[in-house]
Amino acid sequence: MGTAQLTAVPEPKYWHLRTVLLRAIDSEFSTGQVIPNERELAARFGVARATLRQALDQLEMEGRLVRRRGIGTLVAAPRVGVPVSRREEGWPGGSREQVWQTVDCVIAPATEQLAKALGVPAGETVYTVRRVRVAQGQTVATESLHVPDSALARLPAIRLSGAAAEGEEPGREEQGRTVLRRLERLTVDGESRSVELGVAEADEAQLLQRPPGTPVLVVTTQYASGGRLAALAVATYRADTCRLTFGETGLVEVTPVAASARTAS
Amino acid sequence: MGTAQLTAVPEPKYWHLRTVLLRAIDSEFSTGQVIPNERELAARFGVARATLRQALDQLEMEGRLVRRRGIGTLVAAPRVGVPVSRREEGWPGGSREQVWQTVDCVIAPATEQLAKALGVPAGETVYTVRRVRVAQGQTVATESLHVPDSALARLPAIRLSGAAAEGEEPGREEQGRTVLRRLERLTVDGESRSVELGVAEADEAQLLQRPPGTPVLVVTTQYASGGRLAALAVATYRADTCRLTFGETGLVEVTPVAASARTAS
Repeated sequence: MGTAQLTAVPEPKYWHLRTVLLRAIDSEFSTGQVIPNERELAARFGVARATLRQALDQLEMEGRLVRRRGIGTLVAAPRVGVPVSRREEGWPGGSREQVWQTVDCVIAPATEQLAKALGVPAGETVYTVRRVRVAQGQTVATESLHVPDSALARLPAIRLSGAAAEGEEPGREEQGRTVLRRLERLTVDGESRSVELGVAEADEAQLLQRPPGTPVLVVTTQYASGGRLAALAVATYRADTCRLTFGETGLVEVTPVAASARTAS
Repeated sequence: MGTAQLTAVPEPKYWHLRTVLLRAIDSEFSTGQVIPNERELAARFGVARATLRQALDQLEMEGRLVRRRGIGTLVAAPRVGVPVSRREEGWPGGSREQVWQTVDCVIAPATEQLAKALGVPAGETVYTVRRVRVAQGQTVATESLHVPDSALARLPAIRLSGAAAEGEEPGREEQGRTVLRRLERLTVDGESRSVELGVAEADEAQLLQRPPGTPVLVVTTQYASGGRLAALAVATYRADTCRLTFGETGLVEVTPVAASARTAS
C-alpha cells in the first residue's frame, strides 16, 4: 500500500496552529515558564483569538499546557512515568502498600456485570478495596480491587489488629487493610492486563481531585492463582499527567518521542 | 484517608445526563441500533438541546456512540481487544507481518530527539519503517519502527528479492520489507514499553483515515538485543475503538468492567 493511495484528510486551521505552537513551546520555553498571553500570541501567529483559544484548549487537553488563574498559561511538566506491573508495584498488601494508599472497603453482592468479569455467580459477596496511588506528591490514580468471597475463603483468616482487635467495629479503611493482608498470602501465577481510554466517573474524579469526565487510562488487571482468577483490579490513571511503563529489558527507561519528532520524514 | 476528607467536585449538568444516557443505552439498546433523535431524547430527559448535544458529543468521544450521516446516532460496537506483546505479535518480519502491513521506509539522519531515544549520536542514519495494523477489517494502528544503522550493521545483509533483485531501484515499501527481513535475524532479549494518551498527527491521521487530533494510545516499545537497544517502535492505536491487551495468565481475555459498574458501592 503506497501513501499515494490514501485519502487525504483536511487539516483544520486550529490544528495547524496547535502543531506550530507545540514546536515553539518545545524550542523556546521550558517547564513551568509562562507563555505570552492570548493577544500577543494571536498577533504573533496572525490568527483570530477564537482559533488561538481552540489550539490552546487542545494543548491543555494533551497535558502540554496548564492554565493557572491569576498567573497565565504555563508549560506543563513532562508526564510522570508510572511503572505498572506486579514486579514493580509488588502484590497488594506487600511493598505495593507504599505506592497505593487504602481509602476504604465496600462489601457488597456482585452485580451481574462484575460477577461476569470475576467469573463468579451473580450475587456472590465481593470485597472492593479502593485505593489511590500517589507519585511525586500528586494523586495519579484510583483503584478498585475486587476480591470475590470464594477467593478470599481459600486463604487463611488473619487476626485483626488495632481498633478492631480491641472489640470496636472495624472502620472501612481497616477492613480494606485486612483484605489486603489476607491477599498477601496468595501465590500469584501471573497477571493479564488491558489498557484503554476512559473518563473519570464522579467518585473517581473526586479521589483524583479533578472534574468528572477527566480523561483517564483505565487499566484492568486479572490476577491468577492456581489457574483461577483471584482478584480483579480496575485502576484509572490521569491521562494528562501519567505515562504507564512496563519494563522488562533492564535498559534505561523508555524515552518518549515527542509527537513533532515522531513522524518526521 | 476517609472519603469525607476529600473535596467534592461539582458535577456538570451534561455530565449527569451522559451517565444517565449511558445506563439507558446499556439496558435498552444493542450494538448498531439507532437511538432516538435529539428532539425525542431532550423531551424524554427534560433537558435543553444544548445540554443533550454536549452529552452525546461526550459519548461519541468515548467511543460509545457513532454518528452516521443520513442514518442517525448508533450504539457503537465494543472496543476491539488488540494484543500488544512480542509473543502475540511476533517479532517484526515474522508472524508480525500478518498483523502489520508495511507502508514505506524512510532513510534519514536521526534528529537530536530521536537520537536521544535510540541512544545513538545525532545524525546517525536511521531506517524508519512505517506500518499499519488491521483488525477486523479496520485500520486500528500506525507504527514507526526506528532502526539505527549501527544496529542493522550488526546483522548479516540479505539478498534483495523481486524488482530490486532485477536491478531496479527498490520501492519504499520494498526497502521497508528488507529492513524487516534483516531484523528477523536478531535475537531479542526483551522489550520495555510505555503507554500514554496522545493525538494523531497529520500523517498518522491520514493512515488511520481519521481527522488529525483523533485521540490515540501511543505505545513506545524498546527492543533490546545483547544488552543494547536494537529498535524503537512508536505505535498509535485508535483510542475510540481499541483496547490494548497484555496477556500472561492464560486465563480468558480480560473482561472490561463498564464504567457504570466500575465504582458502584
